[in-house]
Amino acid sequence: MSSPCQHELIKRHAACVVWFTGLSGAGKTTLALALDDALRCRGVHTAVLDGDSLRLGLNSDLGFSPEDRATNVRRTAQVSKLMLDAGLVVIVSLISPQAESRDQARSLFNANQFFEVYLNTPLAVCEQRDPKGLYQLARGGDIAQFTGISAGYEVPANPDLVLQTHQYTISECLERLLAMLEPALKRRSVN
Amino acid sequence: MSSPCQHELIKRHAACVVWFTGLSGAGKTTLALALDDALRCRGVHTAVLDGDSLRLGLNSDLGFSPEDRATNVRRTAQVSKLMLDAGLVVIVSLISPQAESRDQARSLFNANQFFEVYLNTPLAVCEQRDPKGLYQLARGGDIAQFTGISAGYEVPANPDLVLQTHQYTISECLERLLAMLEPALKRRSVN
Repeated sequence: MSSPCQHELIKRHAACVVWFTGLSGAGKTTLALALDDALRCRGVHTAVLDGDSLRLGLNSDLGFSPEDRATNVRRTAQVSKLMLDAGLVVIVSLISPQAESRDQARSLFNANQFFEVYLNTPLAVCEQRDPKGLYQLARGGDIAQFTGISAGYEVPANPDLVLQTHQYTISECLERLLAMLEPALKRRSVN
Repeated sequence: MSSPCQHELIKRHAACVVWFTGLSGAGKTTLALALDDALRCRGVHTAVLDGDSLRLGLNSDLGFSPEDRATNVRRTAQVSKLMLDAGLVVIVSLISPQAESRDQARSLFNANQFFEVYLNTPLAVCEQRDPKGLYQLARGGDIAQFTGISAGYEVPANPDLVLQTHQYTISECLERLLAMLEPALKRRSVN
């Protein structure tokens, strides 16, 4: 309902969405939080939408079927839009394995408002990291429909940025993210 | 995920939720937008969550059964929480006729973070205003489960503020809202 222009005036930057997609263990949440910190230190008004956290609240009614995953992405995209309308830089951390769902998310936004960042980390690396022990459970059959093991991940065809998190440090990834965002944050819809 | 403290530091005010409840036509959206404007003019970082708008996006899968209305409120409350975590003053405009749902919404927040504002406007006045022509349709049987006509509204037992929008001007309502919010906005969780 509110005019983003007016929000931009008091926030002094444009709003956008940074959408991290990739396998579990690729570093989505780590980079989302690092980017959130880096932006706030620069006075940017941010919000983080983390898939795991959302499943405790807004999306607590959803499982991991393809339909529920699509709904998960749809709702997260809608919340991102509401936050963008409030003038925020929204940082999303969500496996979002289906290309169609990610494209639907992007379709809610204007060009230059939505950045798809693909964390292109090999499954073997993610599985070795296994920060939550989920790969072990999935390999043992204790988690069904686990992305990369028993459920598919559709690699983004035209992401705005690709980060090999097994080859770059967090600082190097951040540098690339900030370079990508700099023009978008400066863009103003009002003069 | 983000620390509200850090958000407060760059926003220079505390976050809270102002939840307008009342019949269709009571003035929820009008007051929500007026409050939004007034706060932004004071440099406060806001977001508006309007029930009608949400039904076009996040809640487009929901109807008006008691269960769907409860889900509508649940999701709106969860989004409010996400926005509060990002440091915003969230202004909600939602009929939210069920006391239990409103109480569940409140339970997501700390004391002094959630303000239930009951727009206590007589049904006859709302029906006479009928800004969207919905009462006429409901009386004619063209809308089922319409609050106040064919569905109930549970009056809040302990609202933080009651506004008789048929007796006060918008400016007078705003004055009361701002007076209620002033201490909450000044409250800081960090020094």
